[in-house]
Amino acid sequence: MNVLIVYAHPEPRSLNGALRDFAVQRLEAAGHQVQVSDLYAMGWKATLDADDHLDYQPGSQFSPSGDSRLAFANGRQSADIAQEQDKLRWADALILQFPLWWFTMPAILKGWVDRVYAYGFAYGVGEHSDSRWGNRYGEGNLAGKRAMLIVTTGGWDSHYSPRGINGPIDDLLFPIQHGILHYPGFDVLPPFLVYRTSRMDEVRFAAVSAGLGERLDNLWHTGPIPYRKQNSGDYEIPALTLRPDLSPGRSGFATHLGQG
Amino acid sequence: MNVLIVYAHPEPRSLNGALRDFAVQRLEAAGHQVQVSDLYAMGWKATLDADDHLDYQPGSQFSPSGDSRLAFANGRQSADIAQEQDKLRWADALILQFPLWWFTMPAILKGWVDRVYAYGFAYGVGEHSDSRWGNRYGEGNLAGKRAMLIVTTGGWDSHYSPRGINGPIDDLLFPIQHGILHYPGFDVLPPFLVYRTSRMDEVRFAAVSAGLGERLDNLWHTGPIPYRKQNSGDYEIPALTLRPDLSPGRSGFATHLGQG
Repeated sequence: MNVLIVYAHPEPRSLNGALRDFAVQRLEAAGHQVQVSDLYAMGWKATLDADDHLDYQPGSQFSPSGDSRLAFANGRQSADIAQEQDKLRWADALILQFPLWWFTMPAILKGWVDRVYAYGFAYGVGEHSDSRWGNRYGEGNLAGKRAMLIVTTGGWDSHYSPRGINGPIDDLLFPIQHGILHYPGFDVLPPFLVYRTSRMDEVRFAAVSAGLGERLDNLWHTGPIPYRKQNSGDYEIPALTLRPDLSPGRSGFATHLGQG
Repeated sequence: MNVLIVYAHPEPRSLNGALRDFAVQRLEAAGHQVQVSDLYAMGWKATLDADDHLDYQPGSQFSPSGDSRLAFANGRQSADIAQEQDKLRWADALILQFPLWWFTMPAILKGWVDRVYAYGFAYGVGEHSDSRWGNRYGEGNLAGKRAMLIVTTGGWDSHYSPRGINGPIDDLLFPIQHGILHYPGFDVLPPFLVYRTSRMDEVRFAAVSAGLGERLDNLWHTGPIPYRKQNSGDYEIPALTLRPDLSPGRSGFATHLGQG
């Protein structure tokens, strides 16, 4: 199988760098093809702007979604964007690896999402009307592929526990796992998390990498997070609210989990 | 009073541009001083890297937090970072204005946070031990200042309602409002939200800007979101979990709201 790792840490001689190298080796040893988009090493342009649309006319009004739609439809996207989309088409699985900075991904990786997730590629796909709100949340161009996060953080696991001060890690990652990965169709696997990164020695690294190795070995056998699909009948369209008889009386991120 | 608006939209002739101009005028007309950090117009560098530390030695191992700590402590930060910190010191209130892209801020604004929020300035402030986990979540260098988000999105309000498919807007914004604004000490006001931005005409713009004007008029009178303070006694240290007798049996973002 083909695995794309999109990696966002500025220092290769870091815990993230070591885990990335470990992941590549483990996957290749199992016979998979691996590509790494090392965003810092690539000098990835983080900022979505008019330069991303090769036919943008200087002086005209720039529309982030409108220009993205035209550029994608006409094959006039900036080459770096098109290349990353090709990697996504090639991939059977996507891994996003990053340190948690201010409770989400570093800017360079957010800029990969903002730019690579073009209109017509990752959103604006399928019929949009008052009875059909596009192919998204479980459908879309990336359906049939798997995705997983590898996330490191200096905080303790208790700080990210259900009553921890930072908020539960599952909820902090919901905008990424549900909003960025499930949205264009990925099956999203539970994340691989490393806490308290400042306390890492050889013994602990061996345990952490063994855990990661197991997750990678089971990349095609692990059950995805059972997010509901938008067009499965669970939601009322166009309000896109959960049907009243599902998770009655409840609200919040967890209501978007169906039967696993 | 002094108001800093950090603004992240690539096109001035947009709804966001119009709301920004409206906000500046309204605040100035009320006698406030306003500075705008227009990140796109400034060509803001979104990516945190070794260039941010003027004493970084090429070839040495770069540490995002360690180099930030040294650069801040020694006055050897990149000039653009130091300038933004000065603006924050000057400000009595901070407004972050952005379109919601993939359920969070655009990369360029995340890069403002990643870079301007230096170690010693926005984190790593105060005693860190097993009995005291720094001055944060209600304390810190930005305590006593107010902050508010202005956020636009193409989706409908129902899509972001308590049972809406995107997740409740309050929960999507929690990592920003609690994790980025409350963390270094800001009092965080409820956000000003504009939904369904593609359906904007003059009549609706008049209503939206009137609503924004009212919020700006009350910037110093609106009660902040009552996030709990880390060092108020509500949390067990160092686990940083909510005391069992507070919001017993509950978990998630909302448990970090105390008495308003």
